[in-house]
Amino acid sequence: MEKKTKKQSDEKVTKKLIELGNDVMGQLGQKKNPSVALPIRALSNIFFDEKTGLVQLGEKVSKRTYMNIAHTRKFMQTLLIAAECKKIISQNVTTSIRDLYYAIKHTIPETKENTVEDQSESDPILEDLEAALNTLRERLHLQADRKGYVAGPIMVNDRGDMIDCSKMGSSGWAIPSNVEPDLISFEKCSADFVLVIEKDAVWQRLNEDKFWRNQNCLIITGKGQPARGCRRLVNRLHNELKLPIYVLTDGDFWGYYIYSVIKQGSIKLSFLSDRLGTPSAKFIGLTTKDVEKFNIPKNVTIKLNEGDIKRGNEMMKYRWFEPKEWQDELKNMLKVGYKLELEALSAKGIRFISETYLPQKIKEKDFLP
Amino acid sequence: MEKKTKKQSDEKVTKKLIELGNDVMGQLGQKKNPSVALPIRALSNIFFDEKTGLVQLGEKVSKRTYMNIAHTRKFMQTLLIAAECKKIISQNVTTSIRDLYYAIKHTIPETKENTVEDQSESDPILEDLEAALNTLRERLHLQADRKGYVAGPIMVNDRGDMIDCSKMGSSGWAIPSNVEPDLISFEKCSADFVLVIEKDAVWQRLNEDKFWRNQNCLIITGKGQPARGCRRLVNRLHNELKLPIYVLTDGDFWGYYIYSVIKQGSIKLSFLSDRLGTPSAKFIGLTTKDVEKFNIPKNVTIKLNEGDIKRGNEMMKYRWFEPKEWQDELKNMLKVGYKLELEALSAKGIRFISETYLPQKIKEKDFLP
Repeated sequence: MEKKTKKQSDEKVTKKLIELGNDVMGQLGQKKNPSVALPIRALSNIFFDEKTGLVQLGEKVSKRTYMNIAHTRKFMQTLLIAAECKKIISQNVTTSIRDLYYAIKHTIPETKENTVEDQSESDPILEDLEAALNTLRERLHLQADRKGYVAGPIMVNDRGDMIDCSKMGSSGWAIPSNVEPDLISFEKCSADFVLVIEKDAVWQRLNEDKFWRNQNCLIITGKGQPARGCRRLVNRLHNELKLPIYVLTDGDFWGYYIYSVIKQGSIKLSFLSDRLGTPSAKFIGLTTKDVEKFNIPKNVTIKLNEGDIKRGNEMMKYRWFEPKEWQDELKNMLKVGYKLELEALSAKGIRFISETYLPQKIKEKDFLP
Repeated sequence: MEKKTKKQSDEKVTKKLIELGNDVMGQLGQKKNPSVALPIRALSNIFFDEKTGLVQLGEKVSKRTYMNIAHTRKFMQTLLIAAECKKIISQNVTTSIRDLYYAIKHTIPETKENTVEDQSESDPILEDLEAALNTLRERLHLQADRKGYVAGPIMVNDRGDMIDCSKMGSSGWAIPSNVEPDLISFEKCSADFVLVIEKDAVWQRLNEDKFWRNQNCLIITGKGQPARGCRRLVNRLHNELKLPIYVLTDGDFWGYYIYSVIKQGSIKLSFLSDRLGTPSAKFIGLTTKDVEKFNIPKNVTIKLNEGDIKRGNEMMKYRWFEPKEWQDELKNMLKVGYKLELEALSAKGIRFISETYLPQKIKEKDFLP
């Protein structure tokens, strides 16, 4: 992991932004139709990389040109956003993508045309720019939405404030939107592994039982599909501290999908997979096999609906669910016809999850790949 | 503020639950048709209390009886939930309302009938029970959803962990779901006031600028409509530490409604208004008058849609928007025909909100009541 100071990182991305601008200016100087090159972020340019175990972006590039009526508006927006990013970096402030939208919005003089109409126009342009510059929006000084919490034996340094995640009471440390190494560093960590939990209510249950102390681990929740900051944090905890990552979700296709995004990255943000994905993550539960193994009462399972069945059949074809263990689990869920939530374990007693289910699964290394 | 230890609080609410059970048992002993008395939580039993400035629940009570076919199922569920709450309190654990639903769900022996079908059945019964026992779900050891963050010069004691909210980096202190005084206490606070901010992105902006240090205040965001924990925290900061509360929301009817819930309480949870509402809170912005006063460019305003106009007309009739200043603002928004978000202030520069807008509003005490 190359570790830069904030200043170095700002200089590097500013240089990239200036190059983008100079390139367009150069084309104009030669009286060419100006264009910017953007990686194609569509399924046609996405592949599963066997070597890294990540969903990645291919090499295909498209040109966004000024003198093409289908591109003109987006070309203008791309340059506006690049210019605004350069400005906020130079002012040394951070802002939100909503702010960015407002900052670039204006009426083009002597017309009734606005530069952007709503945020759904500016957000994808920003992702284009991240992909084109091979950078994170966090490095462009833009906050993503944040959610998620951490508890356990780690000391985190957030711009000089030392945060001891084993002394954060019932809240835990709230994961910031930007956890890049120039801002957030790990000062001390004695944990043996990381448990990533889909649901905050389950995280709170485990935190109350001081599960992280008994099992000497970190517990992290992403509150549903984790935000970028949470996925990046998991990636860094694994890469820098060599901690194994175990993921605990509901026993349903949505939960399995959340796991796959933590592990392999997502299609939408495939250009960031190496920074957001953690290929060696393991799935700890819930599975339909747990229902038999732990004798979970059937009346807390939930019947699959049509959408579930369709989704399950789709997921069986995903390259990253090809391992036999996953094919077996997906098939079995479709066969038994039910799913179940983490809370279903409470039917066996409120502390069953922290005192029996998780310790046994971890001890037996009863994981899916 | 009556301050109890956790043990005293547990004993008090357990006593209430036992009384509820004994009452039903007593009725059965006398071969009566058993019933439980529940405050009516409908608009017909809600009023705005001029003296306290809170939306409150009236005196009307309904009886939920076992031998009434329309009540039987709910009667059974009420007793199941009361029994489960007593159990989790005695085990000294906390759980979620989703867990509660799973814990009471089972098939009634020798029938195909489930005690509850889904959580939308158990949630309102729990609110009935809170109202009937005049208690909070937090005292019944149930977590509400949590969100929201705090930064500024206050030291919080969370079950023995001391959390310094001026040293929480870019995250802030995450507000727990349960902030009752037996668990969370304020150890030291030198702030002059509290700024409650609708949007997390704006909170992050102000935290980055260390607005709370420059203005010697606490900054809190509820991330949209604040969760119970956040409203209760604001209520306690005002009542116990005598801090003035200023609320900053988008300049739209939804933002004004969020303000009114922080100030007067909500219709749905009117039985908790004295614990969740803060009647002396003031509204700092945004208003349509700010657009003129601060010369905000018109192209960052958003045209009102039909739903907005309907909502605005409804809100003008609410007893708690009767003060002349609010009537003027609501009328003016309908007249100018636009709303605006906090991010609109960025059109004047990224630090405009922290360096000009807020300091000037606070200095001039330019508030709505």
